[in-house]
Amino acid sequence: MYQSLGQLKETKVFKDPVHRYIYVSDQLIWQLIGTKEFQRLRRIKQLGTSFLTFHGAEHTRFHHSLGVYEITRQLIDVFNGRADWDDQYRELTLVAALLHDVGHGPFSHAFENVFGVDHEEWTERIILGDTEIKQVLDQVGEGFAEEVASIINKTHPNQLLVTMISSQLDVDRMDYLLRDAHFAGVSYGKFDLERMLRVLRPAPNQMVVKQSGMHSIEDYIMRRYQMYWQVYLHPVTRSSDYLLKAILERAKELYTSEYAFTIDPVHLSPLFTKEMSLKNYLALDETIVYFYFQQWAEEEDTVLSDLARRFVDRKLFKYVDYPAEKRALVHEKLCTLFEKIGLDPTYYLLEDKLSRLPYDLYGDNGEISKQPIMLQMKNGQMKEISQVSPLVQAIANSRQTDEKLFFPQEILHDLREFANEKMQIDQLLLGEEI
Amino acid sequence: MYQSLGQLKETKVFKDPVHRYIYVSDQLIWQLIGTKEFQRLRRIKQLGTSFLTFHGAEHTRFHHSLGVYEITRQLIDVFNGRADWDDQYRELTLVAALLHDVGHGPFSHAFENVFGVDHEEWTERIILGDTEIKQVLDQVGEGFAEEVASIINKTHPNQLLVTMISSQLDVDRMDYLLRDAHFAGVSYGKFDLERMLRVLRPAPNQMVVKQSGMHSIEDYIMRRYQMYWQVYLHPVTRSSDYLLKAILERAKELYTSEYAFTIDPVHLSPLFTKEMSLKNYLALDETIVYFYFQQWAEEEDTVLSDLARRFVDRKLFKYVDYPAEKRALVHEKLCTLFEKIGLDPTYYLLEDKLSRLPYDLYGDNGEISKQPIMLQMKNGQMKEISQVSPLVQAIANSRQTDEKLFFPQEILHDLREFANEKMQIDQLLLGEEI
Amino acid sequence: MYQSLGQLKETKVFKDPVHRYIYVSDQLIWQLIGTKEFQRLRRIKQLGTSFLTFHGAEHTRFHHSLGVYEITRQLIDVFNGRADWDDQYRELTLVAALLHDVGHGPFSHAFENVFGVDHEEWTERIILGDTEIKQVLDQVGEGFAEEVASIINKTHPNQLLVTMISSQLDVDRMDYLLRDAHFAGVSYGKFDLERMLRVLRPAPNQMVVKQSGMHSIEDYIMRRYQMYWQVYLHPVTRSSDYLLKAILERAKELYTSEYAFTIDPVHLSPLFTKEMSLKNYLALDETIVYFYFQQWAEEEDTVLSDLARRFVDRKLFKYVDYPAEKRALVHEKLCTLFEKIGLDPTYYLLEDKLSRLPYDLYGDNGEISKQPIMLQMKNGQMKEISQVSPLVQAIANSRQTDEKLFFPQEILHDLREFANEKMQIDQLLLGEEI
Amino acid sequence: MYQSLGQLKETKVFKDPVHRYIYVSDQLIWQLIGTKEFQRLRRIKQLGTSFLTFHGAEHTRFHHSLGVYEITRQLIDVFNGRADWDDQYRELTLVAALLHDVGHGPFSHAFENVFGVDHEEWTERIILGDTEIKQVLDQVGEGFAEEVASIINKTHPNQLLVTMISSQLDVDRMDYLLRDAHFAGVSYGKFDLERMLRVLRPAPNQMVVKQSGMHSIEDYIMRRYQMYWQVYLHPVTRSSDYLLKAILERAKELYTSEYAFTIDPVHLSPLFTKEMSLKNYLALDETIVYFYFQQWAEEEDTVLSDLARRFVDRKLFKYVDYPAEKRALVHEKLCTLFEKIGLDPTYYLLEDKLSRLPYDLYGDNGEISKQPIMLQMKNGQMKEISQVSPLVQAIANSRQTDEKLFFPQEILHDLREFANEKMQIDQLLLGEEI
Repeated sequence: MYQSLGQLKETKVFKDPVHRYIYVSDQLIWQLIGTKEFQRLRRIKQLGTSFLTFHGAEHTRFHHSLGVYEITRQLIDVFNGRADWDDQYRELTLVAALLHDVGHGPFSHAFENVFGVDHEEWTERIILGDTEIKQVLDQVGEGFAEEVASIINKTHPNQLLVTMISSQLDVDRMDYLLRDAHFAGVSYGKFDLERMLRVLRPAPNQMVVKQSGMHSIEDYIMRRYQMYWQVYLHPVTRSSDYLLKAILERAKELYTSEYAFTIDPVHLSPLFTKEMSLKNYLALDETIVYFYFQQWAEEEDTVLSDLARRFVDRKLFKYVDYPAEKRALVHEKLCTLFEKIGLDPTYYLLEDKLSRLPYDLYGDNGEISKQPIMLQMKNGQMKEISQVSPLVQAIANSRQTDEKLFFPQEILHDLREFANEKMQIDQLLLGEEI
Repeated sequence: MYQSLGQLKETKVFKDPVHRYIYVSDQLIWQLIGTKEFQRLRRIKQLGTSFLTFHGAEHTRFHHSLGVYEITRQLIDVFNGRADWDDQYRELTLVAALLHDVGHGPFSHAFENVFGVDHEEWTERIILGDTEIKQVLDQVGEGFAEEVASIINKTHPNQLLVTMISSQLDVDRMDYLLRDAHFAGVSYGKFDLERMLRVLRPAPNQMVVKQSGMHSIEDYIMRRYQMYWQVYLHPVTRSSDYLLKAILERAKELYTSEYAFTIDPVHLSPLFTKEMSLKNYLALDETIVYFYFQQWAEEEDTVLSDLARRFVDRKLFKYVDYPAEKRALVHEKLCTLFEKIGLDPTYYLLEDKLSRLPYDLYGDNGEISKQPIMLQMKNGQMKEISQVSPLVQAIANSRQTDEKLFFPQEILHDLREFANEKMQIDQLLLGEEI
Repeated sequence: MYQSLGQLKETKVFKDPVHRYIYVSDQLIWQLIGTKEFQRLRRIKQLGTSFLTFHGAEHTRFHHSLGVYEITRQLIDVFNGRADWDDQYRELTLVAALLHDVGHGPFSHAFENVFGVDHEEWTERIILGDTEIKQVLDQVGEGFAEEVASIINKTHPNQLLVTMISSQLDVDRMDYLLRDAHFAGVSYGKFDLERMLRVLRPAPNQMVVKQSGMHSIEDYIMRRYQMYWQVYLHPVTRSSDYLLKAILERAKELYTSEYAFTIDPVHLSPLFTKEMSLKNYLALDETIVYFYFQQWAEEEDTVLSDLARRFVDRKLFKYVDYPAEKRALVHEKLCTLFEKIGLDPTYYLLEDKLSRLPYDLYGDNGEISKQPIMLQMKNGQMKEISQVSPLVQAIANSRQTDEKLFFPQEILHDLREFANEKMQIDQLLLGEEI
Repeated sequence: MYQSLGQLKETKVFKDPVHRYIYVSDQLIWQLIGTKEFQRLRRIKQLGTSFLTFHGAEHTRFHHSLGVYEITRQLIDVFNGRADWDDQYRELTLVAALLHDVGHGPFSHAFENVFGVDHEEWTERIILGDTEIKQVLDQVGEGFAEEVASIINKTHPNQLLVTMISSQLDVDRMDYLLRDAHFAGVSYGKFDLERMLRVLRPAPNQMVVKQSGMHSIEDYIMRRYQMYWQVYLHPVTRSSDYLLKAILERAKELYTSEYAFTIDPVHLSPLFTKEMSLKNYLALDETIVYFYFQQWAEEEDTVLSDLARRFVDRKLFKYVDYPAEKRALVHEKLCTLFEKIGLDPTYYLLEDKLSRLPYDLYGDNGEISKQPIMLQMKNGQMKEISQVSPLVQAIANSRQTDEKLFFPQEILHDLREFANEKMQIDQLLLGEEI
């Protein structure tokens, strides 16, 4: 039914700092990489604002996507010839791997949070809409684009393909742990990919791990745990994320209340009004956002201009830990103090309570429904890994929390007239100075 | 005369993929890093358009500058205690290292070429002008900012300090070779920094190399040579650079001829008119340039919109080698053909002839005046390295050239009606197909 | 009271694959490295027979010892200037670090097991006996050698120094995890040493970890856990260890029963008779042991010659897992079968049951008394890490076991006449074939 | 005619620090690795005495041989499908790669030099003689062992296979540069293997390089150059090599003059008498040599015991540069002085003059006949690389020399009564102190 576009005359090679080389020999993949929708991923960083904490983390969703493709290519080489792998799905799976993130917009998490954008929905719209990607896919045959989308949105009947692209142990995570670690310059995420690929097995409804690979999986789960606490949830990154959200909230409020912006934010207004077309969405990227932030730094509205300037010049909010039991009291006193000095706590006082089961980490936040990791025992039986590994089980049953307050500490620091109020708060914070 | 700002209470640490950690313990350095002019370097890539060839090369002048600082810090640790090193210059040298690139604008080489911007001049204006950097430096004492600038512009009386920051073997190159190699994902640039630092010696008028370090320097020169040919002068990067210049040239021409842009390019017009203020210059960065390029992709002028779209979507010109002896003929025939099909050769046909002595490489293009590398022989005598190393001498006396034509090959490829003209050109190109 | 030997005129540098460079600037350290007792460590592998599993693991106790010294040197640089560090102990601690393993003999664990050799006792005898090391130490002053020994045997009054050299988180383990991982070619052991050193603090009675370093310590504990299961306890290594012990047991038995060896094992007989002098002990190393093994491969005694040949030619015993509940039965049936075919189960059938609390791993086997890892909380209080980290606590309370039988499977495989007996055993082993 | 032994049921994997993993899927290769002649390579270091200079360089010919096999396996994967590659030669070539060094004895270069042993001849005798290797090869068919040998000794009619295993750019060098660099801990030898394999092409009579790979080959040649001067020809290694040769020369002389050794050197006497059988040769390895050296350290002959003790305890001779023009004079004066103090210059004074064209390096010493590196130009023409690369040509035409005297400097240093003689020599040496 489908008609492959065939092989390239000569294999194309990308130099990649993580996988050394990325090999492309399919016409189809090569053409997809060349589309403007895929090239747009060069202007969206993989880790949002993390580069403000780890300056090396400038890498983009463009190379992450290539990396996910490359791991999938290697994985299929390992699967090929095994009973449960049907090689007619090769190109389909490679395309799904390459395109799984194509719907991401600038600073995805913040935008999703503030404007209700859903990058998975946009991935589907891009694959199925009026795009260069759709044109390339249509050459393969009718229904191909839909089938690609169905793997990414997990409705494809072949759940083995689905779990390769999206599960607790998918090609997406494998690439991002390695890539984020490399660019951030930390060693925590560097598991042994080659060994990992060798312990994976295709099974009828999902990808599984052979029993002797258990320690490799434990290692992988620990690397993830470390990357979460040491990189992804780093308090400085949380601080820059909140600042970003505060800017967007303020701009939305101003827009809604018909504030007259010096430069009309034409690229962002469809977000405010929730009337975003595909063309508009594709025109959005982080260079555009940065352009507006730099203009807003000069706006008349002092809240917007201050927040924007802080973001552009990296004058982030500082943070203090606070004791859970005194949360309400501290909050109240800080609000009072802020109002006295004319700071709106809506934008300038942010509470953040991370409380997650490490099983949440193993499952990632809100992704609890993702396919768990199954070990294939020597006798053929399948077991969920925490049933076999005391280590994973132990991790799955313990909880870690981190509670912080973020606010512009340097302003309080310079106040002289409210020394008394400050001292009271310091005492509640057990001596940490605000 | 000067008053140090003292040490930080706790050493600050940056995680760096190249040096693992960057250590800051001076108040002065810490404050400089926090200025908005220094933070702006986060929005200027170290390698301009190279990320279109090597996708990992997204790193910025921000971390390169930190890296140069860090190498200088380590170098001073090695020098400290030696006869020709005066440790009162420590902070001054560190500041010069940190700030040596602060005047770079977006895509520096293209902008310098098209608009005559000189980043060294801007570095001086930023250090001495109405900036946060100047305010920080002024705390140390009157004249300090000027002394920093004089190291960077090479007029400082202590030429040892000058050659540390700027010479054939300076901290700038040491960092960029390592950093560019790491982010591009190539191994060519990775020399042994720790050993290099151990063979360097302070001398009265310059930094020198002890005789037993000769092979290390040969290695370093070869790594540079490799980085030039394999990365910096990669034909795909040359292609994207030309495209960038073509866009800027076209926009300048349109602006000069009073073309009505859909969005007034207020950030760029001071470049067109050569009336750039310090404030305007500091407001320029690569996110701004990208914003305009994306707008221009929709402009009415078809040359501008086509070129801009090509850059944003990475539809670069292809290239062919051409035989020097037939250059004129090929060029003429291509021009004729281009005019027939309505392509303006001014923007669509670019000739590039790289012809450089490897000694140019050793010296870099146009930097022939940089201090050469001096070996300090066992008997104390100084010798220029090519006098001692047959290898360096050999390199210094051979010439390599590379001549290429860049143009939108895919347009010619699709032409049917001019088959005859194409064939004639192909024959001149010795069978390479245009 | 002591008289330092002073500094070298020029710092000596060792190129090291793990730490890149090892720096020696003290005369005392330099002279100790040059002694014949220290040079002897070049002929004793760090990981005993592990090179038969991981071929890269040929590294010796010589460079491990240098590495431990180097980490100590860096650690002291970090401690220097802090309240609880007294820099008069610098050289003493460096010497203890360098010499802590000097008493190791060939294949230490097997020899300790079979002959009751105690490497810690020999370390003390070498430091205090008639050796070049003692002569070097005596130059510093009377009692210095004794003080070095007292740090290594943990009786020194300054327990901070003791825990630096020997505790759950000591310089010894830091080097061996990194070094063993590097030479074996696995990534599991590669924690971030530079960060680790930055979170350590001197305290009155021990070395502690500052609170914010908790995740680093978790990472370190996980790396150790991985190295244990993936490298140190690898079943192939356990197999070669047992073979080694079987050879030594057989030789001891033959010697005791006055068997006439073709070549008198003069180097080993003091082990058999437990009359080992310091001179004899120092003459023992792995080249000597290998010499005898190669001679024994030609001995008349068929058990000794077969075992020795197997070791030299790496024809190791294979292994099967066996179910704990059927252990006795399997064992009995195998013994019966072995006797029928003339194999002595004493040498040819080895049971190995690893059952350890991961807390044993955290504490290592039999080292439960080692100083635990203490976190120094922000308020100054000390807490044992498993009280603070849910992860470490979880690890500390779970048990992992691994039960294997080792025997020359290929002999059973070739038997035809005992097919029935074999089948019965296979069934007990749940279908794993012997 | 030949009968392949087929594939293993499951691919076997070796963990390797250089190539990460080495994959074996052929029965034939697996069985060859298991032979005792191949396992013997574990007891012969790849770099002889270099570990006395670079302590990490303990790696053996065993893993180098596996590495050469692995590179060949990858190279054949790249060649497979190309016009000039005939895949029926796959196994033959892999076997030749694996076995190419199997004839090496302990400290090959010294033994070859002193006793006229030729490792290439022994490789052939092992492959064709009464060995386990021969038995394994015979299973493939009559004549197979001879065909393997003919590739290694370069007489095989298919010269493409020969140049893959042995030429200026062969799999042997590729592995050893990478492996020696990794274990020595230097970065000089680390070229980009994956890229190298991609620029190689099979051609009718040899392996060639495609034109666009020229810079990769330049890089490879420079790495080799660096490894020669920084590692292989390091003066400390030259010193330990000379000491080794001096011991062997002395032992040979004593044996010839019927000196009564305390322990009869049965393993070495066939070398002295040149009556070495295959069995005797295979019983020789570095553990045996070390055994005798340690015994000889206690011999009555003071020359032998002193030299042996120096080697075992690493008390090497020091060295001074000497000016070519005063060579004779210095030598004469030193000899006179040595005789006065009772040192035999035959053993205690060694002159070493390295004078090689870097083309010798490119060609290696005495290997001038090795197939040069040929570039395949775009038009199909072949050119020797130095005809195309100004860099290689430059290297090929310059000469580097290094002239050193090696002797036990510490003895002269302690002399008081010959101060005058010493001073005269110092002056001839231009002030370098003996």
